[in-house]
Amino acid sequence: MSDLAQAVLAGDRLALARLLTRVENDTLEGRQALNALFASTGKAHLVGITGAPGTGKSSLVNQIALSFRRLGKRVAIVAIDPSSPFTGGAVLGDRVRMRDLSGDPGVFIRSMASRGSLGGLAQATTGVVQVFDAAGFDVILIETVGAGQSEVDIARLAHTTLVVEAPGLGDDIQAIKAGILEIADILVINKADHAGVESTERALRSMLDLAHPVQKVFQHHGQPMNVPGQPGKISESPSSTALLWIPPIRRTVATDGTGLAELMASIQSHGEHLRQSGKWQSREMARLLAEFDLFAQQMLMELFRTRVTGEVLDQMMDSIQNRKLSPREAVSVLLSKVSI
Amino acid sequence: MSDLAQAVLAGDRLALARLLTRVENDTLEGRQALNALFASTGKAHLVGITGAPGTGKSSLVNQIALSFRRLGKRVAIVAIDPSSPFTGGAVLGDRVRMRDLSGDPGVFIRSMASRGSLGGLAQATTGVVQVFDAAGFDVILIETVGAGQSEVDIARLAHTTLVVEAPGLGDDIQAIKAGILEIADILVINKADHAGVESTERALRSMLDLAHPVQKVFQHHGQPMNVPGQPGKISESPSSTALLWIPPIRRTVATDGTGLAELMASIQSHGEHLRQSGKWQSREMARLLAEFDLFAQQMLMELFRTRVTGEVLDQMMDSIQNRKLSPREAVSVLLSKVSI
Repeated sequence: MSDLAQAVLAGDRLALARLLTRVENDTLEGRQALNALFASTGKAHLVGITGAPGTGKSSLVNQIALSFRRLGKRVAIVAIDPSSPFTGGAVLGDRVRMRDLSGDPGVFIRSMASRGSLGGLAQATTGVVQVFDAAGFDVILIETVGAGQSEVDIARLAHTTLVVEAPGLGDDIQAIKAGILEIADILVINKADHAGVESTERALRSMLDLAHPVQKVFQHHGQPMNVPGQPGKISESPSSTALLWIPPIRRTVATDGTGLAELMASIQSHGEHLRQSGKWQSREMARLLAEFDLFAQQMLMELFRTRVTGEVLDQMMDSIQNRKLSPREAVSVLLSKVSI
Repeated sequence: MSDLAQAVLAGDRLALARLLTRVENDTLEGRQALNALFASTGKAHLVGITGAPGTGKSSLVNQIALSFRRLGKRVAIVAIDPSSPFTGGAVLGDRVRMRDLSGDPGVFIRSMASRGSLGGLAQATTGVVQVFDAAGFDVILIETVGAGQSEVDIARLAHTTLVVEAPGLGDDIQAIKAGILEIADILVINKADHAGVESTERALRSMLDLAHPVQKVFQHHGQPMNVPGQPGKISESPSSTALLWIPPIRRTVATDGTGLAELMASIQSHGEHLRQSGKWQSREMARLLAEFDLFAQQMLMELFRTRVTGEVLDQMMDSIQNRKLSPREAVSVLLSKVSI
């Protein structure tokens, strides 16, 4: 194991920051360290927090981090801003955070700019999260902006995904919400002191009914529903209790801490639910398999680019440009000529 | 060449619809037809239209299609709705369109649902556009919703990209707009009869100044700026005239056709600008290269999956699950054992 990886395991914050940069830039040193640290990963609770701009998501992440700190947990925050695929932002909200969290050795904040390619960002995030995991952070908060494919990809990375809404953000984005709802383990209505909170909750609840019809059926029969934030109790047998999770809706006011205790209870219940149901392990394995596929793709392409060069490649490009061979045909021809 | 591909070249609409389905589903027949039709592609003007929900984008696409029809052009519309990565939408706005455009043999409308993976959607869109191109459509309008990575990917596919805004959509999305602006060849403020159009245009113009500093410099010096919708005239020499394009801002009211003539002039000027500057060819080649890479990746993975099976694969998965090998290490081990 490299000195850098060892220093990270030993809790050296400077080494941690340095390694995160290596991993973000996908350097050889970063890759080797990730391999070496892999045996030490798999312990942290990964919590994704996503929501549109204007929902007060950053303040909420801040509060969640503080709450976990009060429980004695070490917390890493990974803030991702893929909103600008070209300019690379990812500095928003950091100053606010720094005020409350800086100087606390149990907290580490990392902002990641979008790297042009979405795949690149998801991969860099995976690596950064693994480093924090190996470094012994108990909770890793992954914050994303928006409601696009990037959020879905990053939600796949997390154990528990919070989707943050706020009252009065308009109906135009309902269609987008419907998609993002399906990745939510916990729904949060932040800014719950604003007007319109009731109608936002009604809208979310009716969407939840569509997404989780079993809940609706049970409501129709007038039976006791799940205790929000607890595994849905649809029978008395413990096994099925653990299997079903109906996303609770939590109201918060991040600026004054209202509702935070209940939200924290839901996050922790969800973690327990995942462990009891075996979903923790299956989500973990699905993620590792996705990583395996991604690396296979990358390494195969690297080999392909090493093997296919010079004149052969130039000829193919000419054939494509003259529309004699389609890109797919050109690849077939090349694969029949070289072996990898 | 297959009968299906030949029928498409001969103008058979039923064959066209059938092939589009094959291509969307990425079937073997679809792939073969794409190869066969490749020689007939490269003529259509691909126009991407993107913007947030609520901008009236669908009506605008409708009007643009009608305008091109009046010029005698054959028009295909590809409507993509990636807003819901799970439910697969893509039916919005079609009924409106059908009313004005249905029954016209010079128009073909295709709605595409999101296919879960973003890469999959971009690939399917590429294929669908190639089929329309080969089938002799002069203009292909590619409509996308939102402002995420998918729009950026699809913009890379188009020759000319329109970004549609509307007054009063709020400041919360400014950060997102800043990213999407950089892909805009033409900015459209639709619903220009609504209040707030002036401030929307001011905001867009100041963002343009940031994105195209050369424009700003020339404004500072009080020199005549570009004629909107024409290549920016920063000098009298014809060569540099053709090289620079500063995105014009166009106001439209799609519901009554206001501003459509000017918008059409800008779209056509941009096409001429691309041809004169050589950018038409360079964008085309960049796209074909990206396709080449994508197919190489896919075929390599297919080969890898064929070669790596059974016990060897199971062992690797166990090693990953037990955290003895990282996903990256497992791939390395496998690649050293098999040859592709």
